[in-house]
Amino acid sequence: MLNPFYIDDLIKRALLEDINYIDVTTDYLIDENAENTARFIAKADGVLCGIDVCLRVFELLQPNIKAEKLINDGQVVHKGDIIATISGKTRAILKGERTALNILQHMSGIATASAQYSKITEGTKACIVDTRKTLPGLRPLQKYAVVCGGSKNHRFNLSDAAMLKDNHIDASGGITAAVNKLREKIGHMVKIEVEVRTLDELKEALNANCDIIMLDNMDCDTMKEAVKINNGKAVLEASGGITLNTLRAVAETGVDIISVGALTHSVKAFDISLKIK
Amino acid sequence: MLNPFYIDDLIKRALLEDINYIDVTTDYLIDENAENTARFIAKADGVLCGIDVCLRVFELLQPNIKAEKLINDGQVVHKGDIIATISGKTRAILKGERTALNILQHMSGIATASAQYSKITEGTKACIVDTRKTLPGLRPLQKYAVVCGGSKNHRFNLSDAAMLKDNHIDASGGITAAVNKLREKIGHMVKIEVEVRTLDELKEALNANCDIIMLDNMDCDTMKEAVKINNGKAVLEASGGITLNTLRAVAETGVDIISVGALTHSVKAFDISLKIK
Amino acid sequence: MLNPFYIDDLIKRALLEDINYIDVTTDYLIDENAENTARFIAKADGVLCGIDVCLRVFELLQPNIKAEKLINDGQVVHKGDIIATISGKTRAILKGERTALNILQHMSGIATASAQYSKITEGTKACIVDTRKTLPGLRPLQKYAVVCGGSKNHRFNLSDAAMLKDNHIDASGGITAAVNKLREKIGHMVKIEVEVRTLDELKEALNANCDIIMLDNMDCDTMKEAVKINNGKAVLEASGGITLNTLRAVAETGVDIISVGALTHSVKAFDISLKIK
Amino acid sequence: MLNPFYIDDLIKRALLEDINYIDVTTDYLIDENAENTARFIAKADGVLCGIDVCLRVFELLQPNIKAEKLINDGQVVHKGDIIATISGKTRAILKGERTALNILQHMSGIATASAQYSKITEGTKACIVDTRKTLPGLRPLQKYAVVCGGSKNHRFNLSDAAMLKDNHIDASGGITAAVNKLREKIGHMVKIEVEVRTLDELKEALNANCDIIMLDNMDCDTMKEAVKINNGKAVLEASGGITLNTLRAVAETGVDIISVGALTHSVKAFDISLKIK
Amino acid sequence: MLNPFYIDDLIKRALLEDINYIDVTTDYLIDENAENTARFIAKADGVLCGIDVCLRVFELLQPNIKAEKLINDGQVVHKGDIIATISGKTRAILKGERTALNILQHMSGIATASAQYSKITEGTKACIVDTRKTLPGLRPLQKYAVVCGGSKNHRFNLSDAAMLKDNHIDASGGITAAVNKLREKIGHMVKIEVEVRTLDELKEALNANCDIIMLDNMDCDTMKEAVKINNGKAVLEASGGITLNTLRAVAETGVDIISVGALTHSVKAFDISLKIK
Amino acid sequence: MLNPFYIDDLIKRALLEDINYIDVTTDYLIDENAENTARFIAKADGVLCGIDVCLRVFELLQPNIKAEKLINDGQVVHKGDIIATISGKTRAILKGERTALNILQHMSGIATASAQYSKITEGTKACIVDTRKTLPGLRPLQKYAVVCGGSKNHRFNLSDAAMLKDNHIDASGGITAAVNKLREKIGHMVKIEVEVRTLDELKEALNANCDIIMLDNMDCDTMKEAVKINNGKAVLEASGGITLNTLRAVAETGVDIISVGALTHSVKAFDISLKIK
Repeated sequence: MLNPFYIDDLIKRALLEDINYIDVTTDYLIDENAENTARFIAKADGVLCGIDVCLRVFELLQPNIKAEKLINDGQVVHKGDIIATISGKTRAILKGERTALNILQHMSGIATASAQYSKITEGTKACIVDTRKTLPGLRPLQKYAVVCGGSKNHRFNLSDAAMLKDNHIDASGGITAAVNKLREKIGHMVKIEVEVRTLDELKEALNANCDIIMLDNMDCDTMKEAVKINNGKAVLEASGGITLNTLRAVAETGVDIISVGALTHSVKAFDISLKIK
Repeated sequence: MLNPFYIDDLIKRALLEDINYIDVTTDYLIDENAENTARFIAKADGVLCGIDVCLRVFELLQPNIKAEKLINDGQVVHKGDIIATISGKTRAILKGERTALNILQHMSGIATASAQYSKITEGTKACIVDTRKTLPGLRPLQKYAVVCGGSKNHRFNLSDAAMLKDNHIDASGGITAAVNKLREKIGHMVKIEVEVRTLDELKEALNANCDIIMLDNMDCDTMKEAVKINNGKAVLEASGGITLNTLRAVAETGVDIISVGALTHSVKAFDISLKIK
Repeated sequence: MLNPFYIDDLIKRALLEDINYIDVTTDYLIDENAENTARFIAKADGVLCGIDVCLRVFELLQPNIKAEKLINDGQVVHKGDIIATISGKTRAILKGERTALNILQHMSGIATASAQYSKITEGTKACIVDTRKTLPGLRPLQKYAVVCGGSKNHRFNLSDAAMLKDNHIDASGGITAAVNKLREKIGHMVKIEVEVRTLDELKEALNANCDIIMLDNMDCDTMKEAVKINNGKAVLEASGGITLNTLRAVAETGVDIISVGALTHSVKAFDISLKIK
Repeated sequence: MLNPFYIDDLIKRALLEDINYIDVTTDYLIDENAENTARFIAKADGVLCGIDVCLRVFELLQPNIKAEKLINDGQVVHKGDIIATISGKTRAILKGERTALNILQHMSGIATASAQYSKITEGTKACIVDTRKTLPGLRPLQKYAVVCGGSKNHRFNLSDAAMLKDNHIDASGGITAAVNKLREKIGHMVKIEVEVRTLDELKEALNANCDIIMLDNMDCDTMKEAVKINNGKAVLEASGGITLNTLRAVAETGVDIISVGALTHSVKAFDISLKIK
Repeated sequence: MLNPFYIDDLIKRALLEDINYIDVTTDYLIDENAENTARFIAKADGVLCGIDVCLRVFELLQPNIKAEKLINDGQVVHKGDIIATISGKTRAILKGERTALNILQHMSGIATASAQYSKITEGTKACIVDTRKTLPGLRPLQKYAVVCGGSKNHRFNLSDAAMLKDNHIDASGGITAAVNKLREKIGHMVKIEVEVRTLDELKEALNANCDIIMLDNMDCDTMKEAVKINNGKAVLEASGGITLNTLRAVAETGVDIISVGALTHSVKAFDISLKIK
Repeated sequence: MLNPFYIDDLIKRALLEDINYIDVTTDYLIDENAENTARFIAKADGVLCGIDVCLRVFELLQPNIKAEKLINDGQVVHKGDIIATISGKTRAILKGERTALNILQHMSGIATASAQYSKITEGTKACIVDTRKTLPGLRPLQKYAVVCGGSKNHRFNLSDAAMLKDNHIDASGGITAAVNKLREKIGHMVKIEVEVRTLDELKEALNANCDIIMLDNMDCDTMKEAVKINNGKAVLEASGGITLNTLRAVAETGVDIISVGALTHSVKAFDISLKIK
């Protein structure tokens, strides 16, 4: 799915970061013709993500390397599962190991958290989405991993959807004026979201016919009230400091969308190892 | 300290990721001449890192923007502290906000964890170091943040120091043979570290005159024994699954170095906000 | 508005294309300290676009060059109007001249055509938009010029909005199935457009609650019928071979949007000259 | 012919512009293993150009895609002709379609115009050439297309040939002084062209032994006189506002070269479609 | 003269090569606010080249650094001469020192050799030129240095002039056929050079009206004969294994051009030091 | 050994430098389907280096070209030896020839000099190493060639080892203070070298437990004294103006390391030709 040129550039940058001259240990000790086989093994339970990117690391180091993928992105893995095997030059395996694992563990960490958050909201109408709180250069990887874990993506960047925050609104003379001014300029394919802090602002945003309304740091009772006022007209998004502990209660308020920055800004690597020979 | 061209490239990549065309909300609603002031405020207690990179985001968007830094990298911050202020075009502030915060929160998250780990080892001779378990393209940022938090850096990449793992050793016919073979080739500025799993391997590595010996996943009693056997000859590094809970005990075994992958592979963002106006 | 890093990269690429070593005429004949003034002058009537990019060419060649802009992007210019003046090193002016004019004439050509198309639809509810039929590497420039001329942008790329063509629909078992399948996966910020060829398909698309429906190569009578059937529910887009001659009739059918590929795929340069001294 | 690294970079830039994250429609609706066949079909009569670049788009998206080229660059095509077929992953075909067509239509548009201009001059000694009035980043594509259409290239850039305009001449104290000064510095592989506005300047340029003399915006009678004065000594180039209407008369003046900026600055896309299945 | 974007890219690449993370010595030992002054001093006699590029290294590391240039590119320097001074951050001076000197010594080495070769031919009509035997990525620097030393440039690359070698000639059925075939395709701004090995080939090349004829590895007597046969019609270039010892004799044969690969493929660095404080 | 992405980028940059549009001679005269075979032949005696990079040039121009390597990097070659053969498109061979030879001759020139220097020190304990006096962008190629010739590498860059020069020492209050300050900050994998000018400084550096001590521009008698004082404690490096003439005497003083800048800053190309057909 991900743009292959983005992926290859990312991998090359990572490998140049890790091998800016040669691998002094591997290049001086391992015969250039030596071959080996290695297996990626899960060390915990979770959702796999990034295996294609991970195997691409080795293909870029040795184009004719043999890779066999046993588990796909988005699938559940259990501790001890063999995820994939690669057979090729020992040098290529050793040089790519760390870069491949760094990517695979990060993406699987996101997918696993994404699944964990989404599971908590099961049975409600709320859908978990990510944010723009991503790491520099890694947004496509991270947003893709969120989807693999079962949550969805918020807007990708500042160009593809409009989100009016207080500064935008104040500069334009209020929600209604801001939304109207924006409508004169943006194309018909762009959705408009407005951030509100009170129920009065919610009402104004509803009158302005926004597509989505973000309820910024509201408590659950206020959000329940907001859901009633909205009555299905706009998409409602809950946002602001929602944790695993508070998530279920937020979901039960009836909002449509819950955005979670931690999915991408505070990622816990998912433990996977590469066993050679 | 960090290479300015690396930093500028990283920021430009992040900003192109976030604004691949225009910022449809800001560019259509905020007057291009409007100006504003904003303050970075800590939302928790920790160690600051990345403030120069963060302010550089805005300088690249508006070369003559005014930035005042009140707290430096490596300093402790408390919830509510004002870290820096910027004054300039409202458009530049709004467009740079997310990218700047993403970097600052990630780096400060690392520095804060680095300080936390190092504090636990106080009074022992053990020093905390990072690993190559970093995120693609972010290694310089991450390694710098580790240092700002008071821990130190392990080797930067595969080119600047040698680390012999089991595959290297097996391919060369044992620790002694491997180290000797390597010595014939590497330059005099490169240190050699050998990974050992048993005390017998430790003894062989000591005889081979390695600079550093990594005790791989040993229990504390074995490590204490290793410290005795070593008797100050090589630098001893403890490695493998060390957590905040087990760290003090490991430090008290008398090892010199404790490497912690979580410092960079599982970063919790440090909460900082940007208040405009 | 446009991302400054995109602009600078584009200009540098163009200048490296034009000066891959040195300017053999200028560098060998013009003293490096010689200075001069030059004026950009319109040679026809139209809408100006790209003046900031154009002047940036010279700033990149000589950071302290003096540029004065007399007419802004989006403003009407008449034959003989002085658009801007620059004063600086003669070498910088001569080296940048061709690159600057090439960009300015292309962007102004698009803005002028955009204004011409939009003027024809005045008094109808139809809005002119561009397409993805842009030149490689120039999409942001071209889409920005469309807006400066008074028309609007269709989706920027394949990532920011969904457009279902016959292949997508056939692969999914029909319009309804396709739209439903897509809704399960895409985020809440993404609009869905469906391409239809008959009024029956239009009805199915309306039932599927698409945001936008594209009427593909329909004649005006059919489009009028489509407008009735739609009754304001979805946004209706006319598309396919619409020319300056047929445009008014299409606009009068009552459609909301008319997309015109020629705005960006068949651009006539707008004539502007640079007079030195 | 064209440098393959330039081509690949251009295509990657275009595809990243069009797919900065994923293709939300295709990636979510088309099975990743689905395959299909598509045909490029001419929708008008003209000269084909860019088919190798066009097919390369798909190869870069799917290295083992099968492409069959039925018509080559530089050949005449007629409405309805099948130009090439591709068979491969449906996803690759759909993702590459727009980028491939944008390039192919632009290059074929140039080649078609190039052929049209050259045909008009048949029977005269005049040869049509392009200019440096190209689009940023596209010069090699555009100049190659001019040649495919039967016209020729003027200098590629400011480094590979000298062209003295009035500013160069004035700064050096006249044509003779300028040409002599230049000869002291430029290498023996570089040709020198001088721009003249009067027959007196022509005579001075002839005495200075320029290789080429450009007759700037002269009327046909003056150009005829210039041809007589020149008497075959230098190459004479007619330049300035020559259109399809005035071209034949200019060619009949006896000049050697007629340069036409419109070939590359005002390109009309040549209509080609991609029919899938 | 040199394209500033080429220069900046080259310097950034060199500095990233030399500082891929931080300068561990300087960044840890020198206070970030410490300032200093340093002087570039010639350690031998020769021709200076590259001082602007050299000083640009420091400007890129510290934009407001103060540089004073005392000797310009192309000027003779003597052992002990102060070439330039810089005042700024000690860190910037120490970090840039090696990269700046590497460039300055290489370019000055070329200019010095260029001057040495050209001096030997004084009084003859022969002119020394360089070749395409340059180092990857450094051609503009190297060709510019050749000119600073008083020699001239041969063609810059394969695009800007034609040079027919035996493979080209054989593939086309002889010199006459090859030159005629080429004339049908190349533009009027491109010169044609033909490589000949015998006087018969020379005669054929003269009849074909080549612009330049290269006498490939001919002895001096044969070249004298060639000069007579040519009688001023074409430009004659001597090429092949010419050394400082044989150069004068070759120049005295009456050829116009002598190309010397060693100017750029076997450069002896010119000794320059940077004295700090 | 060398990072393949570095190599490919270097080759692409070189080929774009040499073919910025097309190869006007080859592309216009050689049929695109013509095939040929060519042989790389040594024209002198020396040590080969760069043959893989050289052959990669042609693979990048024509992925399915056939290359057969007869001699490997690091092997001795004699005048007349066939080094490798390539069979493929004549166009690819002609277009890659110059770039491939430029790289191969430069790298083999370094390896040959490296072998020559190392041979002179045979029988002593001294080992020849390179320096950071490399050409911009070519350091990995050059350092690898030094190793192929039998010498070794000094530190790769400013990040991977510490070298204290007088400015660092003065700024820190002397050798002891500087080394101690540095030890507090650098990681355990980084070696420390100190530059000394007198035997007193040597003694201080020894007391400070530096890993390596550089004897800067000392005469041989002083170095002999230094070797005695050192008594095997630190690694001693001789540096400063050592030539082929003085090398043996320096090696016989008993130092461990002799660094030679000329290996990389003053390279004499090793003569190799490509014979086609």
